[in-house]
Amino acid sequence: MVVLGIDPGSICTGYGLIRKDRDGFHVLDSGVIRMSRRKSHAERIGQVYRELETVIDACRPTCAVLETVFLSRNVQSALKLGQVRGAVIALCANRGLELTEYAPREVKAAVTGRGAASKEQVAGMVNRMLQVAENPETYDVTDALGLALCYILKSGNGSVPSQRTTGKRKSWAQFVESRPDMIVH
Amino acid sequence: MVVLGIDPGSICTGYGLIRKDRDGFHVLDSGVIRMSRRKSHAERIGQVYRELETVIDACRPTCAVLETVFLSRNVQSALKLGQVRGAVIALCANRGLELTEYAPREVKAAVTGRGAASKEQVAGMVNRMLQVAENPETYDVTDALGLALCYILKSGNGSVPSQRTTGKRKSWAQFVESRPDMIVH
Repeated sequence: MVVLGIDPGSICTGYGLIRKDRDGFHVLDSGVIRMSRRKSHAERIGQVYRELETVIDACRPTCAVLETVFLSRNVQSALKLGQVRGAVIALCANRGLELTEYAPREVKAAVTGRGAASKEQVAGMVNRMLQVAENPETYDVTDALGLALCYILKSGNGSVPSQRTTGKRKSWAQFVESRPDMIVH
Repeated sequence: MVVLGIDPGSICTGYGLIRKDRDGFHVLDSGVIRMSRRKSHAERIGQVYRELETVIDACRPTCAVLETVFLSRNVQSALKLGQVRGAVIALCANRGLELTEYAPREVKAAVTGRGAASKEQVAGMVNRMLQVAENPETYDVTDALGLALCYILKSGNGSVPSQRTTGKRKSWAQFVESRPDMIVH
């Protein structure tokens, strides 16, 4: 199972590919596609499509995951973001990749156990679970990796129980204990 | 010169291809891509991409024209429309098609001589100039053809003087006289 998480934005688009096998999680590739400010609006959208296409062709993911859009922003922002998302969605459809969308809360809950976790907490947990070096500047990447991780955990291939089935909030000690994959070496 | 006009919408996307040569305007193809309501949001966007790709491969346009977005609608609509536009823009970029955008007012002014013309007036004029049978249900198509026509007229390949250079509004008689292409046979 190879999952591609994508975090499209009107300035840059983060992506991360995770393979899950018996040995645990492996980050196959991750990065940020920064749209050149010198290019036209149309060229930038084409750039995101083609760079992500290269990533897909190299790593051959089995499915893709996007974040549902947080819609409190203005109409102009929604349109700009929509255009980048449209290019990404068309690419996934063209490559026959099944696309799943999660709300930010779902990703936070799946990864950290708490739907209201901060961006820093999500990044910290993603980096620990995937044994990736921390880099506070790459939230675009950790957000994308978090989406892919959320998909794996929810599909029952991770070792973490679904947050939906837990009645009470657990203590952090219990939570960490329940996730052997996450222990830092 | 073969120009592809595209009118992307969150429900259906109109398109029209016009070739301009010495004999005048020729509609090579036109139609509406209706997104299936049974399909997922991602599949619909992929459908627009692939159907339009087939049209481009068949008619080999030299450039493409979109309408700039009318942004008074709500954020959710802007996002939906943005996603369809993003797929279309990515496709044009992938095919190396130069993309031009016109405001609705510019298209109306170029085609009818009046920036405040109604949708019906634009459709009537487009149908007359291109000698296409009138069909009041296909504004998606006439809007797309209007965009392509606007590009041709503005690029100096049509026989119509640019609206920007006219100081005073002309009478309809003068206007019709200045457009020999438009005379109904």
